[in-house]
Amino acid sequence: MDLQEIVDDTYRALADSRGAGKVADYIPALAEVDAAKFGIAVVTPDGRRFTAGDAAEPFSIQSISKVFVLALAIDRHGDALFDVVGREPSGDPFNSIVQLERERGIPRNPFINAGAIVTTDRLIDRRSDEDAFDELVSLLRKLARDDSVDYDRDVAQSESRTGARNRSLAYFMEDFGRLLNPVETVLGVYFRQCALTMSCEQLAEAALFLACDGVDPETGHRVTTTARCRRINSLMLTCGHYDNSGQFAFEVGFCGKSGVGGGILAIVPDRASIAVWSPGLNREGTSLLGARALREIAERTGWSIFG
Amino acid sequence: MDLQEIVDDTYRALADSRGAGKVADYIPALAEVDAAKFGIAVVTPDGRRFTAGDAAEPFSIQSISKVFVLALAIDRHGDALFDVVGREPSGDPFNSIVQLERERGIPRNPFINAGAIVTTDRLIDRRSDEDAFDELVSLLRKLARDDSVDYDRDVAQSESRTGARNRSLAYFMEDFGRLLNPVETVLGVYFRQCALTMSCEQLAEAALFLACDGVDPETGHRVTTTARCRRINSLMLTCGHYDNSGQFAFEVGFCGKSGVGGGILAIVPDRASIAVWSPGLNREGTSLLGARALREIAERTGWSIFG
Amino acid sequence: MDLQEIVDDTYRALADSRGAGKVADYIPALAEVDAAKFGIAVVTPDGRRFTAGDAAEPFSIQSISKVFVLALAIDRHGDALFDVVGREPSGDPFNSIVQLERERGIPRNPFINAGAIVTTDRLIDRRSDEDAFDELVSLLRKLARDDSVDYDRDVAQSESRTGARNRSLAYFMEDFGRLLNPVETVLGVYFRQCALTMSCEQLAEAALFLACDGVDPETGHRVTTTARCRRINSLMLTCGHYDNSGQFAFEVGFCGKSGVGGGILAIVPDRASIAVWSPGLNREGTSLLGARALREIAERTGWSIFG
Amino acid sequence: MDLQEIVDDTYRALADSRGAGKVADYIPALAEVDAAKFGIAVVTPDGRRFTAGDAAEPFSIQSISKVFVLALAIDRHGDALFDVVGREPSGDPFNSIVQLERERGIPRNPFINAGAIVTTDRLIDRRSDEDAFDELVSLLRKLARDDSVDYDRDVAQSESRTGARNRSLAYFMEDFGRLLNPVETVLGVYFRQCALTMSCEQLAEAALFLACDGVDPETGHRVTTTARCRRINSLMLTCGHYDNSGQFAFEVGFCGKSGVGGGILAIVPDRASIAVWSPGLNREGTSLLGARALREIAERTGWSIFG
Repeated sequence: MDLQEIVDDTYRALADSRGAGKVADYIPALAEVDAAKFGIAVVTPDGRRFTAGDAAEPFSIQSISKVFVLALAIDRHGDALFDVVGREPSGDPFNSIVQLERERGIPRNPFINAGAIVTTDRLIDRRSDEDAFDELVSLLRKLARDDSVDYDRDVAQSESRTGARNRSLAYFMEDFGRLLNPVETVLGVYFRQCALTMSCEQLAEAALFLACDGVDPETGHRVTTTARCRRINSLMLTCGHYDNSGQFAFEVGFCGKSGVGGGILAIVPDRASIAVWSPGLNREGTSLLGARALREIAERTGWSIFG
Repeated sequence: MDLQEIVDDTYRALADSRGAGKVADYIPALAEVDAAKFGIAVVTPDGRRFTAGDAAEPFSIQSISKVFVLALAIDRHGDALFDVVGREPSGDPFNSIVQLERERGIPRNPFINAGAIVTTDRLIDRRSDEDAFDELVSLLRKLARDDSVDYDRDVAQSESRTGARNRSLAYFMEDFGRLLNPVETVLGVYFRQCALTMSCEQLAEAALFLACDGVDPETGHRVTTTARCRRINSLMLTCGHYDNSGQFAFEVGFCGKSGVGGGILAIVPDRASIAVWSPGLNREGTSLLGARALREIAERTGWSIFG
Repeated sequence: MDLQEIVDDTYRALADSRGAGKVADYIPALAEVDAAKFGIAVVTPDGRRFTAGDAAEPFSIQSISKVFVLALAIDRHGDALFDVVGREPSGDPFNSIVQLERERGIPRNPFINAGAIVTTDRLIDRRSDEDAFDELVSLLRKLARDDSVDYDRDVAQSESRTGARNRSLAYFMEDFGRLLNPVETVLGVYFRQCALTMSCEQLAEAALFLACDGVDPETGHRVTTTARCRRINSLMLTCGHYDNSGQFAFEVGFCGKSGVGGGILAIVPDRASIAVWSPGLNREGTSLLGARALREIAERTGWSIFG
Repeated sequence: MDLQEIVDDTYRALADSRGAGKVADYIPALAEVDAAKFGIAVVTPDGRRFTAGDAAEPFSIQSISKVFVLALAIDRHGDALFDVVGREPSGDPFNSIVQLERERGIPRNPFINAGAIVTTDRLIDRRSDEDAFDELVSLLRKLARDDSVDYDRDVAQSESRTGARNRSLAYFMEDFGRLLNPVETVLGVYFRQCALTMSCEQLAEAALFLACDGVDPETGHRVTTTARCRRINSLMLTCGHYDNSGQFAFEVGFCGKSGVGGGILAIVPDRASIAVWSPGLNREGTSLLGARALREIAERTGWSIFG
């Protein structure tokens, strides 16, 4: 199997559809992104890298950051993290508050917005917000092997300005005493993590440990235990695409996490860490071309966690 | 890795806990089962079989039957099946009707009761209920290599007598015109499939094709395509345990489907088909010892679809 | 105040709009009704009767029957009736099942379908369905002073044939053990009560006791106690129009109960019993012209229970 | 009918139960109130006043303030107010957010917290928060004939400190663009209106216009039109006690609005404005003794809007 050929074929098969879908426009910084961008990066455990298109161009990773925050928070708190956030698919959209009321301020999983906010709160823990965010950025720089990884100040400010729904979710959890830190402190980190800017290459590199039992194979650095690595992957599979997680598992068969900036991170355990990017979204808020590219790669490689 | 040793160790580690949990008592035939029963059967693609305890004793497979009905219905209708049943985890209990109202009579997935009922309706299709049920039993007999596989008349009648909730779900879908057949016809087959009686050995054998890309490796009989096999596995992973599917994926890491009779079927693609049985249920309605046994097996073998 | 003039003026003001709205078409017998029909009948405690248009023409009273069934069931069981049905507006459509799941098979009030079905079950009590239905018809004949009041066999059969949603609601309650009688027995009476045929004149006469502290002023026959009469009126006010009860109270200010056949019964305590009929419905399923006629009457008479 | 005797008898019949129920303790200022307080004030259109117990002692009127804010907001915006807040009972608790998601940020009615918050936003309109709050206080002082009516600074600050749920509701509405003013501006007024301090006598006086077609009978000052007065009364009847509005209508039969400080305001059109106060609450958050007192008064006077 020639992976570079598969990546090239996938890119070519979809390149004509660039611009399809609807670019997120709730903040100007995202709305201004060139809709025709399209990048693919596949990194394998042996350190090889296969790319196509705009794989080296940084974009706003948005909710994909939740995967890395989760990895750090699990390592910090162990299973106690799951006292304040569940492990079940929600069956609801990313920003729904309905379930939160029924279940007394405990979000269903760490990938819906409410769950990600409380996970960020636990990443901060009793530290300053600066220390917590620094830990996250340091990890990403180390794993991506690139010290320039950073967040976009404009995007972070825009997220905050338009963040009424996230504030509503956070105050709802505060009402049930679920947060260790003040709402605005937690959201300050949350909006910055959403504003992190990375390329497909950096993202695929940074998540390679998830395909390798928790260890970065190039440096031997153990990011998390094998058991926790599998648990993160299971959460990506069951909850990574909100109320479309089942369909993604059904059609693609990889663990995955999408972001509204048009990126999707996918993990095929023991095989590859994959990042795709195309700003146009489908109705469910997932990158239209990105999801198609992953389906193509699944079909061409024959990879699937389901057989 | 000596699988027989792992199975024996697992059995021994848990045997003292036999009788734990609460046996289903909504029908007499289930309530009378000996709570101390405990069986394990692991079948591998090369045809080897590893068992412990009451692995040869038949029990009521209940909702595990939904997996085989789904396999036949997908083969009969292809993706058109998913016009009347979704592919998303529901986040709700097995018998909830709330989602059905919001989504106009289309159940979230084929494993919650409503979804299983409409899947059975599509298995019947335009045939007689007898023909449809015969197809199911014939498949199970062939795959289990045992012509004595059958259903328990008492259990089927009890299911029907206590089936008010299932009737409510079925009439709700009929109201939206989702059923091809009359409610009582569909439920007649549904109650019989729930009353099917199989042993752990038979069940693990019968489901081996799901671990083998859709082919029964012993006979070479292709039960379904590779793509459909993966899709069935993905549905077991995301939806196989109702509102505890996420936790099962998180803790065990196998595709699985539980039944209220105390059985659990688990698939580890390319590795094994596993059936466990112990009648005592946990609060979520899954076999208490069965789920623990699968966790033990996952830990001792190191198997997981997540890495 | 010349009531006949007000009734005439109201009729004339709206007559040109006859045919507006959408006639219920879920059963043929209703769909075939002449959309241009429009009748008004006002009966006052002193026995005077003011009518206009098709006030003498019988129509299918449908859900308006729930008021009389409630009166009989309250008298039969007293406050114990409210162990199986609530007294709160539901905020949901007439046929919603969502609340029923959350509240374990106890409907919010006696006017949503589920609540009316369990009220009919309690009207039957331990009697035969024939005896129960006879009691209802006898009461209506006596109060309407017309022995020809009866139900339409075609409508009742059509209701039963298309009654999947009501069966779903009934089986749901049966699952929680809320019914004394078999589902089909209860629905047999329920479908017949919905098929009762009365004219505006008969309806207004029959309900006059609700405007007169529970006593039929013409015969002195006490139908129910003053306290229960007020309670029935309060339930009509808060729950009589499903999820539009608040708006009806806000805009009209009378106690009321609508039926999908285009009839509305309204009670102004101490002032009048009013029945209007026009088959065209608004989006909420209430008679379009009927609701407007009541608003006109409220404005022209100055009557309101709110001041 | 000797009203003073009825008020005295009611007071005596319940005085021994003083202290029953649970005093609100979510803020210290409320928790410290003497649980044994109990006051009754009845004011009739002819200006007579009948009191018993602690009728002259000021208490925190809390949600009762929503009635006066609604009166001012309806007068300011007319029916356009109901573009941003509904007129239907919600069937949900006072602080539920579930309905708000389903109905895109438009609260069901002006008396649940979300609806009261947006009503306060419309009271502010394009003015300063000071001007708006001054208008409210001025109205109360004028109607209560007492220039000392004011709000409690401690209570207002405590409300703000513990106001996470209200912030969540407000930000949720802001997310849908339903607010004219910033969340903290709106809540600043909202928390102050909840902290208003009035006695039973002042409250009954201030609300007398609602029993008199919108006119303060002692001064002839028309507070609102007859039509709007009736509409406010209808909203109190259908929505004044959250998910127990139906039961209050059923059992008491007056228009009413309760506050968590233990006060209840009740309107019997053309008959009386009534205020009762006892800090101990029932499970639904309504004054236990207060509700009983109103039921006693209803029974002893025979008053009811339902007959």
